[in-house]
Amino acid sequence: MTTEPRRPCPFLATALAVLACAAAGHAEPVAWRSMGDVLAASADADWRDIEPRNLLYLELDRGTVVMELAPQFAPRHIANLRRLVAAGHFSPAAIARSQDNYVVQWSGAGPLGDAEERLAPEFFRSAQGLTFTGLASRDAYAPEVGFVDGFPAARTAADGSAWLAHCYGMLGAGRDTAADSGNAGELYVVTGHAPRHLDRNVTLLGRVIDGIEHLSTLPRGGGPLGFYEQASERVPIRRLRFGTDYDAGWQALRTESPTFAALVESRRYRNEDWFVDPAGAIGLCNVPLKVRRVD
Amino acid sequence: MTTEPRRPCPFLATALAVLACAAAGHAEPVAWRSMGDVLAASADADWRDIEPRNLLYLELDRGTVVMELAPQFAPRHIANLRRLVAAGHFSPAAIARSQDNYVVQWSGAGPLGDAEERLAPEFFRSAQGLTFTGLASRDAYAPEVGFVDGFPAARTAADGSAWLAHCYGMLGAGRDTAADSGNAGELYVVTGHAPRHLDRNVTLLGRVIDGIEHLSTLPRGGGPLGFYEQASERVPIRRLRFGTDYDAGWQALRTESPTFAALVESRRYRNEDWFVDPAGAIGLCNVPLKVRRVD
Repeated sequence: MTTEPRRPCPFLATALAVLACAAAGHAEPVAWRSMGDVLAASADADWRDIEPRNLLYLELDRGTVVMELAPQFAPRHIANLRRLVAAGHFSPAAIARSQDNYVVQWSGAGPLGDAEERLAPEFFRSAQGLTFTGLASRDAYAPEVGFVDGFPAARTAADGSAWLAHCYGMLGAGRDTAADSGNAGELYVVTGHAPRHLDRNVTLLGRVIDGIEHLSTLPRGGGPLGFYEQASERVPIRRLRFGTDYDAGWQALRTESPTFAALVESRRYRNEDWFVDPAGAIGLCNVPLKVRRVD
Repeated sequence: MTTEPRRPCPFLATALAVLACAAAGHAEPVAWRSMGDVLAASADADWRDIEPRNLLYLELDRGTVVMELAPQFAPRHIANLRRLVAAGHFSPAAIARSQDNYVVQWSGAGPLGDAEERLAPEFFRSAQGLTFTGLASRDAYAPEVGFVDGFPAARTAADGSAWLAHCYGMLGAGRDTAADSGNAGELYVVTGHAPRHLDRNVTLLGRVIDGIEHLSTLPRGGGPLGFYEQASERVPIRRLRFGTDYDAGWQALRTESPTFAALVESRRYRNEDWFVDPAGAIGLCNVPLKVRRVD
């Protein structure tokens, strides 16, 4: 395999790439590295511990789905989710909907305890105070896309707002027609091509970091919107708990790190032997957001 | 539900929309119609019969997947596929790979007959002679995206080429490292977020029009790239046949029709009550490509 990309510096997306190209005088191609090589060369400082209280475990008979929560985007929904879990709201709980190329959705039927029944929406927030790592990619839905603390996100200068993006694996809070009708007692995970038209219309509160196949392979529901038509088709949830109840820990690659910038460039320009015409481009929801388990 | 969009003429994507807005003097909002209403008002002329010879049926124990082939983009691969089917190449055949958020892949192990073992690639073609309906949407991967004969596609003025796009449900011909190593004896379907970096690197020859859930819900393979590790995990294929062997017919909504243009606008600007902030935008792989069964 050649290590010389056919199009050096194809998309000057990151400070790192600019510096690397500048150092090479724009004459010598930058040595291309595979994503595996980029990750193998990562430093410990490129990874952050995910706080156990921000890990959410969905336990099913078929396996466990692990999610990271994003309190910087949805503090009210996540605080309410903590109250719901404490009150036993998800005992019982079941997956009631699996719509092909769209979402899997579940809800609890237990008591509310001191949780709120309705919550003011958290569809977007001020971009101020967030470390936003831009992707330099055209996007159909937003003027600017990138990453915040390991989550795919977007922002606009028009009103200074930022929001999480509905990529594959994102976790959201279902709601009815009223904007304040969600309370995190009903949750969904995106299991299809990114339904980005939902951005800024519903509260996203995290993303799946492990075990999404336990959701994505569920039988699709035969009713409208993929709801299961028979109660017997619903998939019971054994437990929904936070990471503070588990021993295992997780780390996420810092999206503001030079290693992540190198990973993006490695994926933007796929120089593996197999590729005949590397795109030199990458979409927001095509960027791998890496995590690793630390036991 | 109001029929007045909050942002009239948000994205003047189609001649229809331009005319509608012009007719309204840009003062009165165009009445918004749901996709269901748009389709219910469609004329028979908006639909085309899919030629039975361009329908491909993949029969599994769990159900049948129906695909439409695109000979205008991959004539050699489709001609070779006909020879392979005639030779019994897919007896036996099995699904050997299911990679989460990516593809399901199968291949035949029967004789080649008079089919070619290798084929010159059909990664793209000249845009000349194609009816290309532009989407007017920003796209991360291509300068211009739209639709050709019901398939998601892209084109560039740089070299006058056009190609099919790797959206959810697209059917491709697997290959090894050599560009000419595919022959349609190994086929894959996209079952995750559009892997558009594959565009122009592999031959696409059609798309699933019905039954994709029989592929998308398959257990994921535990080996590298989602290959099943045990032969017993492979999913046997009962039969792979063309529509000429079946009585049922299918029609596809003409993507060059005014009804399709109205459908795109209906989806670009989602004015259902539920939406608080309709995007006024739509990505190539988020546009529904409608078909209907005619018995």
